[in-house]
Amino acid sequence: MAYELYYWPSIQGRGEFVRLALEDAGAAYVDVARLSEADGGGVPALMRLMQDPALEHPPYAPPFLKDGTLVISQTANILQYLGPKIGLAPAAEAGRLWAHQLQLLVTDFIKEAHDTHHPLGSSLYYEEQKPESLRYAQNFLELRLPKYLGYFERVLERNAAGAEFMVGSAATYVDTSMFQIVAGMRYAFPKAMSRTEAAVPKLIALHDRVARRPRLATYLASGRRIAFNEKGIFRRYPELDG
Amino acid sequence: MAYELYYWPSIQGRGEFVRLALEDAGAAYVDVARLSEADGGGVPALMRLMQDPALEHPPYAPPFLKDGTLVISQTANILQYLGPKIGLAPAAEAGRLWAHQLQLLVTDFIKEAHDTHHPLGSSLYYEEQKPESLRYAQNFLELRLPKYLGYFERVLERNAAGAEFMVGSAATYVDTSMFQIVAGMRYAFPKAMSRTEAAVPKLIALHDRVARRPRLATYLASGRRIAFNEKGIFRRYPELDG
Repeated sequence: MAYELYYWPSIQGRGEFVRLALEDAGAAYVDVARLSEADGGGVPALMRLMQDPALEHPPYAPPFLKDGTLVISQTANILQYLGPKIGLAPAAEAGRLWAHQLQLLVTDFIKEAHDTHHPLGSSLYYEEQKPESLRYAQNFLELRLPKYLGYFERVLERNAAGAEFMVGSAATYVDTSMFQIVAGMRYAFPKAMSRTEAAVPKLIALHDRVARRPRLATYLASGRRIAFNEKGIFRRYPELDG
Repeated sequence: MAYELYYWPSIQGRGEFVRLALEDAGAAYVDVARLSEADGGGVPALMRLMQDPALEHPPYAPPFLKDGTLVISQTANILQYLGPKIGLAPAAEAGRLWAHQLQLLVTDFIKEAHDTHHPLGSSLYYEEQKPESLRYAQNFLELRLPKYLGYFERVLERNAAGAEFMVGSAATYVDTSMFQIVAGMRYAFPKAMSRTEAAVPKLIALHDRVARRPRLATYLASGRRIAFNEKGIFRRYPELDG
């Protein structure tokens, strides 16, 4: 049976990390909230499951994945669950823990990337926190971005199997996640990324290789890939890209 | 062989979630950075391992756990690894995914709790971001805190095995983590918590039960439990407790 992914239908957001893994693996899945309401989809379908009072393990927030009767949330947890089933995780426990550890750092990174436009809270509009966003973004782009990307570069450098993949000698969901953070940062902060990329050549090369993986290239060129926009995590506000 | 925990020696911080699980389980562990430097401990020991260029899987930041040759970081990942070994995780996969999912929400919560005093970035002092902290904290205490705690309360209400534990019918690391967020919020925001607690009676009762667990009670009364202070995640800045 196809996996059912539940995520907001108009943004890449956190759900995109799951979509990328499913697409790269060629796994059968339904992106439920992107179906029409007439077909049982849309945001109402997402809300209905999330708020179902009979659900013993309710998600706190999207994305969540339904696999039979199992409903799992938290992006990194979903990927940890899916990875071995769709051929995008290492076989041994140590490798799986390592892949998950890296994905949890991706979680940390995208929270900070998100907070460049919402440093005071998600319930306030960006327009209500513009000066604070500017200060946050400056700090993020100067100190945090090079630290995170430099760490991911170091992971590639230290991989005993070579710098082709983040973990071991085969693709995992960590590779598709690396693609996404480079792509997202290039969209949101093209100037800062052009300054930062020279220091992380292996990571950029990984991004390029992932983009050329056949199933992923097909996905990225398709209508299933939602365009970056100013409702998601990575937003292009030129005033923040100092 | 005893587990080796590496974390900053003068704060509870994220490492405390690991300490609580180890202490509750009565597991043998060494809190390495709390040993004297003469005994091979202290912050230098922590930095030495974290920055060891021979480490293929370097931690990004403390806490990290060393178990034989395995070095694991990210608090929730450490707990996921330790849980089954120390008797604080469910036996079945679905239960383990659920426990981990809840712990990842704890991760999200403590990041937001931390940001009440550092909304613009960790590299700036609190004193450099006091007005922003006030706006962040107001939003956090009014909207986010009740939403998070209300969710955890709902998890207890929906537990088919009853509201004694967060997951199933036995203690897990999620219970010790619930204890810690209630204790931390009571320390940092006593006024806001006194307003919020009435709505989450099962969660407060869980906090109280966890605190009475014999090994945990012994730990909490011992010198091993570092006192809350204004260097950690939960800081008492009365001006933020509106």
